Amino acid sequence: MLKGVILSAAPHVQVVDVTHEVEPYDVQRAAFLVWQCWSWFPEGAVHLVVVDPGVGTERRLLAGRYSGRYVVAPDNGILTFVHRLLEAEGLRVVEQPVCAHPEVSATFHGRDILAPVAARLAVGERLEAVGRPAGGPVLLAVEERARETSLGLEGAALSVDRFGTLVTNVWQQQLAGARKAEGGAIVFVDGEEVGPIRSTYGDVPVGEAVAYVGSGGLLEVAVHRGRACERFGRSPVVEVRWG
Amino acid sequence: MLKGVILSAAPHVQVVDVTHEVEPYDVQRAAFLVWQCWSWFPEGAVHLVVVDPGVGTERRLLAGRYSGRYVVAPDNGILTFVHRLLEAEGLRVVEQPVCAHPEVSATFHGRDILAPVAARLAVGERLEAVGRPAGGPVLLAVEERARETSLGLEGAALSVDRFGTLVTNVWQQQLAGARKAEGGAIVFVDGEEVGPIRSTYGDVPVGEAVAYVGSGGLLEVAVHRGRACERFGRSPVVEVRWG
Amino acid sequence: MLKGVILSAAPHVQVVDVTHEVEPYDVQRAAFLVWQCWSWFPEGAVHLVVVDPGVGTERRLLAGRYSGRYVVAPDNGILTFVHRLLEAEGLRVVEQPVCAHPEVSATFHGRDILAPVAARLAVGERLEAVGRPAGGPVLLAVEERARETSLGLEGAALSVDRFGTLVTNVWQQQLAGARKAEGGAIVFVDGEEVGPIRSTYGDVPVGEAVAYVGSGGLLEVAVHRGRACERFGRSPVVEVRWG
Repeated sequence: MLKGVILSAAPHVQVVDVTHEVEPYDVQRAAFLVWQCWSWFPEGAVHLVVVDPGVGTERRLLAGRYSGRYVVAPDNGILTFVHRLLEAEGLRVVEQPVCAHPEVSATFHGRDILAPVAARLAVGERLEAVGRPAGGPVLLAVEERARETSLGLEGAALSVDRFGTLVTNVWQQQLAGARKAEGGAIVFVDGEEVGPIRSTYGDVPVGEAVAYVGSGGLLEVAVHRGRACERFGRSPVVEVRWG
Repeated sequence: MLKGVILSAAPHVQVVDVTHEVEPYDVQRAAFLVWQCWSWFPEGAVHLVVVDPGVGTERRLLAGRYSGRYVVAPDNGILTFVHRLLEAEGLRVVEQPVCAHPEVSATFHGRDILAPVAARLAVGERLEAVGRPAGGPVLLAVEERARETSLGLEGAALSVDRFGTLVTNVWQQQLAGARKAEGGAIVFVDGEEVGPIRSTYGDVPVGEAVAYVGSGGLLEVAVHRGRACERFGRSPVVEVRWG
Repeated sequence: MLKGVILSAAPHVQVVDVTHEVEPYDVQRAAFLVWQCWSWFPEGAVHLVVVDPGVGTERRLLAGRYSGRYVVAPDNGILTFVHRLLEAEGLRVVEQPVCAHPEVSATFHGRDILAPVAARLAVGERLEAVGRPAGGPVLLAVEERARETSLGLEGAALSVDRFGTLVTNVWQQQLAGARKAEGGAIVFVDGEEVGPIRSTYGDVPVGEAVAYVGSGGLLEVAVHRGRACERFGRSPVVEVRWG
């Protein structure tokens, strides 16, 4: 339905699916993915996100511009990483329902408000025209960057990907010290030693745990041909020690 | 393959996925979804539906126009809601296979007949040009509207969505009496009281059942952060009583 | 991310999803599907395949042209059927990473090399311009065509589709003798008799096994409304006997 609404308002826009694999209610996964995909899309692209456990409650609906791309989403934490890590260029509250289907009075915010606003932005409408200024968005209580300790770094999982791999908040830029340390750095997951930082999961035998810097520039913990989230749970403490 | 066939015949058409989550053989779910999505797509859009448990049997293949949009589908009940609830503007039987791949003689109707016809309609071919007149389509034995009783309404589930929510055949327009009734209306599912009609599932605690009018204008029965189809089965009797 | 990279480099290209249902590491399934879809897409189409269990190891990345369409993929066996069964028109090793995101140094080959090359080919770049000559691709140890025996044919499953149906390497062209044989041909799966070759799975009662020539021109073994891969495993011996 959302695609139909967008194409009705903006027939020449190309609609692409980013993912339909976010579990219902998993706002943190959606927040992570929209941030990870953000800058790979062209300037002017509109990221429409409809992961909305609070639909029907009083949560606001937002349209924002960060680093040249737009987002349209409920104000439930989806903007956490985008807002903290990209350049904010405007944030608006959108309210006006657009009801193209006269027989339907119940409102589906994704279809009736977010999709029409996404279409307007996609064809060049100015952000200022779609709503009143918003102040800041709701942010999840998640550390987007691992904490420095006397031994190295202490971090956490930001997300679990579809291979069961834990994507952590240890940034490759935080690992400069580890790379220079004599004897190298060792990764621990909930206190269990996982070994040094490898280049890829292919560096260990099938079934073994492994830590490496993933394609998003973050330390990841995987099990070669297995699922790290089943071995370690979805929110272990991840330490890198080289002290 | 279907997308390739469409884009070979109509390179400038935009192909969008509506859903690939209909279970094999679940014609009623497909019938419900194509109807729900129908009018949100622009006039002239072509809905291509390939849920076809009877492939290889003698069932017909149809192309139809309803309320300004087209459908191309096997004649197995997929048109049930579209035909009963939208404005019929022509229905044709399509037969001519288009075999673009000389090495393949076995026929895949979706690829070899339905997709080429969808492409022709998408670029403006007249419906009358794609086949002979069809008479009426096969219709499923499903009540698309709840029955009025002395106590209120007695209905059924039309469909189960991916959250496990039951979408019923109780239309919001049938609830006018319930809204005016002293003491309000109460919803029962297989005789179990679910409470009054709420605004949204967020109005009850997590784990509780709730009834509300959904975005399609139909009464839905959900479990907040749970799956109503597991608590109540997929085809319970749904009553609204205010008598 | 791959779609974003393609649309950043080639804004007017249409990106369509072929499948996201290949299990991680199932190179043979990917190889089968890219071959099956190949010629249904228009000439000049680019098939981008990112099933890559060897990411991070020394496997090469390839761009090839076969029968007028392009493929961009890791050199891990994905080209097995395309290379053996279609007309080879050039094969190149691609190496140059394209890193549009300055903060990310870890390389995701699908995003940083394959997608940019796919975009270049999609807008008309010559294959010769994207890399050095490759020699032959890695090929899986799979027989793409059943073996002739004194009794008829002895074959194997090439792939399991999402209905659990086994798609075999028995080609309809190999069945000419079976069609002429007195008494007809009988299909055996791991020695168990499945019956004659039918027109479609609808020709047997629900729950029964059935063999028929599928839409790809290959003999398939299905269970009517069931899953053949659960009854017979994923790699049984499939015989057709008429001797």
